[in-house]
Amino acid sequence: MSPNMSRDISPAMSLPKTETLLLSQDDSVLFITLNRPKARNAMSLQMVQELMAVFKAINNKEPEDTSSIRAVVLRGAEGHFCSGGDIKDMAGARQAAMSEAAMSEQEDSAAKKEVGVDPFYSLNREFGRMITFANQIPQVLIVVLEGAVLGGGFGLACISDVALTSADAKFGLPETGLGIPPAQIAPFVVNRIGLTQARRLALLGVRFDGREAKELGIVHETHDSKQALDEALTRVLKQVKRCAPEANRITKSLMLAVGHEPIESLLDGAAESFAKAVQGSEGQEGTMAFMQKRKPNWAGE
Amino acid sequence: MSPNMSRDISPAMSLPKTETLLLSQDDSVLFITLNRPKARNAMSLQMVQELMAVFKAINNKEPEDTSSIRAVVLRGAEGHFCSGGDIKDMAGARQAAMSEAAMSEQEDSAAKKEVGVDPFYSLNREFGRMITFANQIPQVLIVVLEGAVLGGGFGLACISDVALTSADAKFGLPETGLGIPPAQIAPFVVNRIGLTQARRLALLGVRFDGREAKELGIVHETHDSKQALDEALTRVLKQVKRCAPEANRITKSLMLAVGHEPIESLLDGAAESFAKAVQGSEGQEGTMAFMQKRKPNWAGE
Amino acid sequence: MSPNMSRDISPAMSLPKTETLLLSQDDSVLFITLNRPKARNAMSLQMVQELMAVFKAINNKEPEDTSSIRAVVLRGAEGHFCSGGDIKDMAGARQAAMSEAAMSEQEDSAAKKEVGVDPFYSLNREFGRMITFANQIPQVLIVVLEGAVLGGGFGLACISDVALTSADAKFGLPETGLGIPPAQIAPFVVNRIGLTQARRLALLGVRFDGREAKELGIVHETHDSKQALDEALTRVLKQVKRCAPEANRITKSLMLAVGHEPIESLLDGAAESFAKAVQGSEGQEGTMAFMQKRKPNWAGE
Repeated sequence: MSPNMSRDISPAMSLPKTETLLLSQDDSVLFITLNRPKARNAMSLQMVQELMAVFKAINNKEPEDTSSIRAVVLRGAEGHFCSGGDIKDMAGARQAAMSEAAMSEQEDSAAKKEVGVDPFYSLNREFGRMITFANQIPQVLIVVLEGAVLGGGFGLACISDVALTSADAKFGLPETGLGIPPAQIAPFVVNRIGLTQARRLALLGVRFDGREAKELGIVHETHDSKQALDEALTRVLKQVKRCAPEANRITKSLMLAVGHEPIESLLDGAAESFAKAVQGSEGQEGTMAFMQKRKPNWAGE
Repeated sequence: MSPNMSRDISPAMSLPKTETLLLSQDDSVLFITLNRPKARNAMSLQMVQELMAVFKAINNKEPEDTSSIRAVVLRGAEGHFCSGGDIKDMAGARQAAMSEAAMSEQEDSAAKKEVGVDPFYSLNREFGRMITFANQIPQVLIVVLEGAVLGGGFGLACISDVALTSADAKFGLPETGLGIPPAQIAPFVVNRIGLTQARRLALLGVRFDGREAKELGIVHETHDSKQALDEALTRVLKQVKRCAPEANRITKSLMLAVGHEPIESLLDGAAESFAKAVQGSEGQEGTMAFMQKRKPNWAGE
Repeated sequence: MSPNMSRDISPAMSLPKTETLLLSQDDSVLFITLNRPKARNAMSLQMVQELMAVFKAINNKEPEDTSSIRAVVLRGAEGHFCSGGDIKDMAGARQAAMSEAAMSEQEDSAAKKEVGVDPFYSLNREFGRMITFANQIPQVLIVVLEGAVLGGGFGLACISDVALTSADAKFGLPETGLGIPPAQIAPFVVNRIGLTQARRLALLGVRFDGREAKELGIVHETHDSKQALDEALTRVLKQVKRCAPEANRITKSLMLAVGHEPIESLLDGAAESFAKAVQGSEGQEGTMAFMQKRKPNWAGE
């Protein structure tokens, strides 16, 4: 399977229509391309909503539905991943906030206080809801990072299961230099690389390249050319295919729960999943394939 | 003290009889060798139970019992650490599960649901109980890793205080490739190296060597020969001896509690331990030895 | 702005009088120098109390008070950062504990039990209170590490936002070798570098240099000469100035809350802060400066 050819194949499942994203599916892999190249794929409100719609559509909890998506590859069109929040949306929110304020002068001040109404609040919070959701999709989420990986783009990179970057990609949290906090992003950076590194990156507004992103533990692999990056992606997708889809879903969900649930109940639940998996179709096929020294049926060609 | 000679010395304390483990004691160091070399020291149910029995026997909470074990060295016989769960035990559990199922057809279905009864559940959960317990033994736990460090063996490496590996050891979580989740292991991998690295390792079923294990932060030292590995172990055991036994126990327990207890109450308790230690025999000997420029009495020859 | 010249400028705000610390202020940067060079800046009870008083004085929560301190630089006088707890204070506490014990023999034993009364307890706990507070000051805390960075000095390094070290600085937790636990320090080491590395450092009493401190993730930059170290500090302070003061405060507070508050409520609060910031003076100035391709007014000359 070549990721380069995948664009020609039409989706086998029902995905939402999108304007800011290119979607294509190759077998069990969904390719999402952020596609606002003139804005270096800046994250508009529409893009946030379309990403959310796609992640919701593939959040299939039915076990052992082997025809469904097993990996999602997220990248940006034309040499950039994502340059952060879209300034124009900000301007739109400002306009909305101003007319809001004008209106509320005529009304009681309580209405103005209602926080959900503030268009800046909504714009910001919606992005946070989307990456919180994306962090927990059952599929393996792979990001391919090139060019700008800034602000919200940096945040997206921080929730991937596998992050591949070009060595010369540009990472950073430019927010505080613009007078605003990286509000929905900072917690995901802390969860990604720990407080020790995150506090320095944010409070100094540091810019750095792919190589340093690897050293900091933000990404897993760094590559010197687009070709090497594409080859790495092909290799990663092969590795995903060797792992049983349902076993992978359980494992991802288990790992994400560590630290959010008492360890004893976590391990109790894990043992239940284990017992079910061993006696289920994947566990039986896996053991059989191992004894017969052949690939299991989920591994593809 | 040479770890190579230690096998000749008989245990000074009462340890359980074991068939899958070799036990030997040299002064305050207990050496445990996983000893099923024909199965590359695969983790059988019996081995899990024997490890648990040994860890329970040395879980001495009496303070300042300087004759007791201060360090535990865990390694595998004949060039492998541990190749993971034992397939034969799995087969045994399958048989048990099948007869269980046959029986429960005659009975009410409620009995079948009772989760503790499922032999796969028990097999899996028991391993988790053992490493949960082993993670918290008051001694310094040192693992020496060679050859296969897979599945449950990988899990054991993740709870050590000090991990030494040969550069060519083979690490990995092969479970998802067999159609099952690394259920009792995954949480310990997350706690060891963080979610960012753990999610990739598990979801791609990655295999890697000792050098990469060091880069990932799974182990502390990597060595190119068996001799270098043994010398490193001797050095580590000397370092342990320089630290006061009771002070070390308190410190380990304190560190393990971080993130599981509110920081203020943790620091309150730590200050109590400190006050007690300073005025106890170790604190007095330590200060005296420091002023007299001699080694404290716990440091041995 | 040169950090070397800053000592000549008198503080613009009211700071406490100190005997163990040198204080100086250059614009929005406060320089604190631990100044007990004969004791390699060992942490006396007085020093702990003076540090606490200074951190409390600058803990300005008023938003957008641009005249206040934005960065704190903490270093040690005459080639050492801090060699740990002061032995003489320990002796003083011992004396106090003994007379306490003598008194309580005449009284009822309940009084003796009251834990706050034990002078060793107080001595120890006070240090923990100080670094807990220092960890959360709204300013960017930069430490410059040279010579001894031991015990409590190591603890202080672990709560910085940015840590710069000379390559030959000496790090370590010598406590357990003296028969006592690193009681108020160990939790901050765990939070700094994770349990996996922290448990080894403490239980072996490892000593290591600045280069290894960088590898372990304790510090962010290591430099080979005092000049390089000072240049790095100048560069870091310039970076801090480019970030908006109030946005930085919000960001730091947000990052410190990760893992201590449910993620959803954290992100809700973050979105509120974002909405306020965008519409506040910093957000407006930041956007304007960006459009006009000039530096924002908080960036200084």
